[in-house]
Amino acid sequence: MSLAAALAAEALRVQALLDRLAAIGADPPGITRHAFDARENAAHALAASEAARLGLEVARDAACNLYLTWPGADRAAPRTLLGSHFDSVRHGGNFDGAAGVVAALAAVAALRAVGFVPRADITVAAFRCEEAVWFGLGLIGSRAALGILPPDALDRRRADTGLTLAEHIAGCGGDPGAIRPGARLLPPGPVRCFLEAHIEQAPSLIEAGVPLAVATGIPGNIRHAAIRIAGEDAHVGLPRRFRRDAALAGAEIFTALDAMWAEEDAAGRAMAVTIGRFHTDPARHEITVVAGDFTFSIDLRAYDAPHLAWLERRFHEVLDEVAARRGVAIDPGPRNAAPVGPCDAALRASLATAAARMGVATLPLGSPASHDAANFAATGIPTGLLLIRNANGSHNPREAMDTADLMAAAATFAEWLRAEA
Amino acid sequence: MSLAAALAAEALRVQALLDRLAAIGADPPGITRHAFDARENAAHALAASEAARLGLEVARDAACNLYLTWPGADRAAPRTLLGSHFDSVRHGGNFDGAAGVVAALAAVAALRAVGFVPRADITVAAFRCEEAVWFGLGLIGSRAALGILPPDALDRRRADTGLTLAEHIAGCGGDPGAIRPGARLLPPGPVRCFLEAHIEQAPSLIEAGVPLAVATGIPGNIRHAAIRIAGEDAHVGLPRRFRRDAALAGAEIFTALDAMWAEEDAAGRAMAVTIGRFHTDPARHEITVVAGDFTFSIDLRAYDAPHLAWLERRFHEVLDEVAARRGVAIDPGPRNAAPVGPCDAALRASLATAAARMGVATLPLGSPASHDAANFAATGIPTGLLLIRNANGSHNPREAMDTADLMAAAATFAEWLRAEA
Repeated sequence: MSLAAALAAEALRVQALLDRLAAIGADPPGITRHAFDARENAAHALAASEAARLGLEVARDAACNLYLTWPGADRAAPRTLLGSHFDSVRHGGNFDGAAGVVAALAAVAALRAVGFVPRADITVAAFRCEEAVWFGLGLIGSRAALGILPPDALDRRRADTGLTLAEHIAGCGGDPGAIRPGARLLPPGPVRCFLEAHIEQAPSLIEAGVPLAVATGIPGNIRHAAIRIAGEDAHVGLPRRFRRDAALAGAEIFTALDAMWAEEDAAGRAMAVTIGRFHTDPARHEITVVAGDFTFSIDLRAYDAPHLAWLERRFHEVLDEVAARRGVAIDPGPRNAAPVGPCDAALRASLATAAARMGVATLPLGSPASHDAANFAATGIPTGLLLIRNANGSHNPREAMDTADLMAAAATFAEWLRAEA
Repeated sequence: MSLAAALAAEALRVQALLDRLAAIGADPPGITRHAFDARENAAHALAASEAARLGLEVARDAACNLYLTWPGADRAAPRTLLGSHFDSVRHGGNFDGAAGVVAALAAVAALRAVGFVPRADITVAAFRCEEAVWFGLGLIGSRAALGILPPDALDRRRADTGLTLAEHIAGCGGDPGAIRPGARLLPPGPVRCFLEAHIEQAPSLIEAGVPLAVATGIPGNIRHAAIRIAGEDAHVGLPRRFRRDAALAGAEIFTALDAMWAEEDAAGRAMAVTIGRFHTDPARHEITVVAGDFTFSIDLRAYDAPHLAWLERRFHEVLDEVAARRGVAIDPGPRNAAPVGPCDAALRASLATAAARMGVATLPLGSPASHDAANFAATGIPTGLLLIRNANGSHNPREAMDTADLMAAAATFAEWLRAEA
């Protein structure tokens, strides 16, 4: 049987697996697989049962990340890691994260079906809690696996349950005490490279009519979950010159940052500013009261570290300018950062070659979003990332990936592994 | 005894009355006297007991407004009405509304103490539910009294209790069935004029060092309690050109309207724009999700009807411009309006003269806010409005009026009534 035929046979199983993952996450409108909780656990259990069917070794680390290993002829040779995550945002879609684990498993299944024998171990990983919505910090599982989780992260509380990350990890059978800076939790031995497939979260591939992109880089980000603007509550009758309007200060900050983005866009310097939470206090705001209190979040992202650092400085300059002009105080609150993740040039070339050999068209594209892969790149492990065509973005119920496009990623992985692993 | 001496003797009773009103409304931080509810009822009962002590006739109308009448020598002669309201916003101050009723009662008490006999009836009124926060519509009691309450108002629900205005009125012993457009509920007979005292809700008198202003006019307003912007939820990774960011559209609308206000201010055309509610959806917003949904309120105000109409047209032009540029849909939702309230020129002159005769300094000032007085002016009844110096604005717990300044308003009313009523 050819690899292409084996992949074709695998497509139905992939569809069934995606359907079972959708059932696990069903939470109309959309899909919710809460991090470190029953639905993420169920997705991990489903992947583990698939791996057992394929004869893979199943292991879990102290952070409850899942590792499904196809042993190589030389167990000491550098391991190839492939994977992504199963958690989702609230009322998100079925494919953000899950598609990458499923594509990696499908590649392994197809290679086993054609009798391939890997030289070194191939491990499919499912990392925990990639989404930042749960604990106000993203990429938690892969950070923990690499020993780069910020020391205070275990004390963070999940927005909805109020339980700490440590409590959630322990509740899933993990060992939070073993999660420490510098302590790698990955399967033992050297890692040759990390490969991830993830749905594209922008419509560039839809526009281009191409099923797959080989990412040129992964943006780093700077995040503040809750920036507080303190002005002064006042009556609608207060003249303009006396007002210290916190909501207006927020509006000026947003428009100033969007203008900055427009300039960068025009100059061809890829970046993004997202202010997803932007609000007066629902317990206090009134139609006849000038808002003395305003809160917003920010996610600033860029593809190289100097550009990201410059954006962060500009962001703080905007805060300072508006605070001075509007007579308000701005407290940026806790800051989180995800590193810029450069994609390995040799891997970019070999992934594009593997795709071409399988008849899959690709184009090079900057990843719109951060992914677990960024942590591997930031810690010096050669990293490759495939982006799968997907309509309607992600983090919403209308997320829409064609299973055939997921199979294009699986084919690329399978051919790359056949040639390289 | 001179009128000045009678007023001095009245000051201690006024202070005690204000303290009892504060105790009725105590709701840390601040004062809450819910409209058509136990605390507003208690304030009305306190005023009625004061009136009974003074020998005034006590009456209530179908909307539960309170009328305390000192009978004149000629009961058929046109009546002078004075008053304001007792309800407050949530966690507001003690004086917004209450000061005006107390000042009117103090003027009557002082005049009785000096043996004055009025030629026509003098009626102190306490109107219900002046604040717009309770039913999304302000000046309800005085609108009902004048027969100009919008027909659908009785079906509005109070934001917190969920009960309709009709249910609240009935619960306070009123008769909602008798509240109809064109049906006046005021005490019978002609009305000569309406006088109101109200704390200033801006710091102009504090800045000027003057205790009292004679208002030159009362602004009308256009209000929308909930304008919805519908864009599209999207992932942080979505490039700028694809975004339909509802929160950014909101930010642009706010900054555009503030720029319009700055221009009008510079040209000396008094107006105000207030956006008190300005928010992403707390149940859905996320740091990593471009907001597809945004809600805001607006209060637009100006002192003459053509200017207000022009502002409303400009407002809708801004909505249309931003909607087109950002690819969002904007639904302005229900619109409420309060009429512009011109202050009677002869009353302005006679109030200023009365104040001067009592040694009270005044200055002319546009009222920053709308008041019950605006309804009287809009229905053609000659209207006068005194603004009492007050620190820290109103609609907040830090509202601060000196009782001596309230007594300056009482002295002005007493001297005006002595000369005119």
